[in-house]
Formats: sequence, C-alpha cells, structure tokens
Amino acid sequence: MRMSELSTATGVAVPTLKFYRREGLLHAGETTSPNQARYDESHVARVRLVRAMVEIAGLSTASAQRVIAALDDGGMPLNSLFGVAQRAVTMPAALAHPEPAAADGDGTAEPEAADGPGARIIAELCARRGWHVHAGNPGLAMAARVLDAYAQLGRDDLLATVGAYADAADTVARADLAAVSGAGSVTAMTDVVVIGTVLGDGLLAGLRRIAQESESQRRFSAPPASLAADPEESC
Amino acid sequence: MRMSELSTATGVAVPTLKFYRREGLLHAGETTSPNQARYDESHVARVRLVRAMVEIAGLSTASAQRVIAALDDGGMPLNSLFGVAQRAVTMPAALAHPEPAAADGDGTAEPEAADGPGARIIAELCARRGWHVHAGNPGLAMAARVLDAYAQLGRDDLLATVGAYADAADTVARADLAAVSGAGSVTAMTDVVVIGTVLGDGLLAGLRRIAQESESQRRFSAPPASLAADPEESC
Repeated sequence: MRMSELSTATGVAVPTLKFYRREGLLHAGETTSPNQARYDESHVARVRLVRAMVEIAGLSTASAQRVIAALDDGGMPLNSLFGVAQRAVTMPAALAHPEPAAADGDGTAEPEAADGPGARIIAELCARRGWHVHAGNPGLAMAARVLDAYAQLGRDDLLATVGAYADAADTVARADLAAVSGAGSVTAMTDVVVIGTVLGDGLLAGLRRIAQESESQRRFSAPPASLAADPEESC
Repeated sequence: MRMSELSTATGVAVPTLKFYRREGLLHAGETTSPNQARYDESHVARVRLVRAMVEIAGLSTASAQRVIAALDDGGMPLNSLFGVAQRAVTMPAALAHPEPAAADGDGTAEPEAADGPGARIIAELCARRGWHVHAGNPGLAMAARVLDAYAQLGRDDLLATVGAYADAADTVARADLAAVSGAGSVTAMTDVVVIGTVLGDGLLAGLRRIAQESESQRRFSAPPASLAADPEESC
C-alpha cells in the first residue's frame, strides 16, 4: 500500500507518518519509484505500536526510539528487552533519572542518594520475598526514593503499605510473565514484553484509582446501595 | 525562622522557595518587616510536600497547585480529595486527558472514544468486583484506553492479565485506605490521601519492575542461585 493508504489503515495523518519515518520509528517501505514506497502489514502494526507508546503511555519520541531499536534488535534477550521497556515509560523516568525541578535555574538540593533508608528497606524486601534483580533495575531507585520521601514527609505510617504493594507487584508480574510465556513465537513474546510493560503501568494506575474510590466509598460514605440511584454512577 | 533558615531546614534553595511562594505552592509567612517574613514548621512540611510532588512524582507546577489548593480547602470530603490527587499525577494525565502527539502540527486521528470495547470490559469488571465509582473517576478512561490499545495492537492475549491487575489494584487500595483510616486526625488523613496517592503509583511501578525482572529470571534464565556470585546483583 502507499503512504496515503497506510494513513487510512491506521488513522494516522500522512505528515505524522513522515515524522515517524524521519525519526526512525517506522522502517522503510519497498521503494517503487524515486518518490514512492510501498508499505505492508508490518508497517500498519508498527504505526499502531508507536501511536500507543506515544499517545497512550505518553512516551517521548526519544524513549519510543529506544524501544523500537530494541525490538528491531532481534537478538536481545528477553530480560534486557524488559529493561529497555521498563526504562522507557514516562512517569517513572522522573524517578529513575531524577533531575532537580527547573524552578528558576538556581536549582534545589541534590536528590537523596540511592543508599538512604528507602534503599535498605527495598533490599530487605527483596531478600524476604526472594526477588533477584540486577543493581541496574530502575525499579530499585524508584521505590527507594518514594520510601525516602514518605520518611522525610513524616509519614512513616505509609511504610506499612509496602508489603501490600509488593504483593500487588508480584501478582501483576506473574500475570505479565504468563502472558509472555503464552505468546508462542519469539516475535510475539517481544511484542508482549514491550506492550505489556509500557502500557501496563497505565492499566494498573487506572484500576488503582477505581479501587481506591470504591474502597473509600465503602469505608467513609453511605453504603454503595445508595449509589444505584445516582445518574452519575458508571459501574 | 527566616527564608534562609527555611532553605537550610529543607535543603531547597532560596530562589526556589521564592518561586514556590509566587506560584501559591507555599503559604505566606508572618510579616515582620516590609521585606521580611517569619516561617514556621508548617512551611517546612509544605516545602517537603511540594518537593516530593514536583521532583519525585514528577507533577507539573499547575498540578501541584491544584493539590495544594485542595489540601488548603479544609472542608473538602476525602473522596473529592482523592479525586484531585488522582488526577494530578503526571503519567496518567496523558491517559486521562488524551491529546494527539504534537508530531508536526498536522495532528493524528482522534483518540478512541471512552465507549470502545475497553470501557465495556472495565464496566463488567466493576460490576463483577462490586466496585462503585462515579463516571468522572479518571481511572475508568485510563484503564479502558489501555485495553483498547491491546485490542488494536492485536494483543487480545493481554486482556487475560486484567483480572490479576484488578486483584493487585484491590490489594493496594485496601492498604491505602487502611493507612488513611489509621492516620488519626483529619489533617493527617488528608496528608496520607495526597502523599499516598501521588507517590504510590511510583512505588507500585518500581516494585512491578523488580518483580518483573525477578519473575523473568525465574522463568527464562539460569536458576537464581547462580546469581549469588554476580557482583552486579543487588538484592
């Protein structure tokens, strides 16, 4: 198909497709004339993946490029691919690569080092649960910085939630890896690693918001039965 | 204390404190002379909270302002405060308020409406689990858009993970609300709602990355015992 047909098939405008092509997010089509190329189903799939990463997971172009490069490097072991996908997601990037807020150029104090009390708590948690990971896993610093913040904010009581969060992480990780294992071909497995890792944070954050409001209603508000008559209620 | 002492107490530079003050993120001190004000422990606590929101959770100044305004509105019911905090977190904002990628100005197709198949699956999930939330809960659209993306990417197999993700969300929400209930005073409860909601996504995303790598090692690599000799291993 031509680029205009690729646009129709994916719902992505031609100038955006050209942008994806320039930025290396979309592989070249088969050249049919000096000004024309032919695209196929692999391009349709790639455009959909790029769109999901950029528009739904909120990845920057640079992060999406790293994921695409890792996907195209067919020889990358699954664990390394997980690492690339894990590091790509926007929100945690602020945690994994902390930068002082660009408030007014003068900057704030350095962020806490990763060997604060939070890092110790996470190391103990890993030991207790039998979690084995490399020191470069971005989750170690992310989780430790949140725990350090709880302590600095004088909310040590929130440390009591860590066990439940770890249970939840285990539940999700098992489902993630079961999906990877069940995918069949190596190509499908790498797709599942990337798509599940990049988009899964958003699914989990979304469901957490639903469960939180529901649990809050249950504890602090009128019984759920009273909501049945509320036209605003959705589920 | 003076602003310079507030800076020492919090590790945040004076120009940044002035920026927080200008942007309404920090309440006024007690004026002691036309050019000077006195600050107290409430300012220390507030600066730490703002710093955690901006630097650790990655909130924009505008999002942090909304959270602070909600906190300062002492009469806001806990459920509404949850909503404000839930909407503030950066990463999910891309999901809750979708905007086309600013690729080249021409724009891409409209994001899927919230009544796609994903929304139906989430509605059924809520009914099955007895989750009661209002239609405005940002998690509904976030979760639905991820499920729509799974389907569009031809990865319907990832829909099989939704049940486990919902279990995890329930586990986390129960721990969140237990922490809120246990906080004691109304002020402490609002603090726990805001801090736990804004920073909790990062904790969960971090632990998910650790559990994912660990589970991936367990399934696809050499047994964990072989890692004991790896100098790179951290936990």
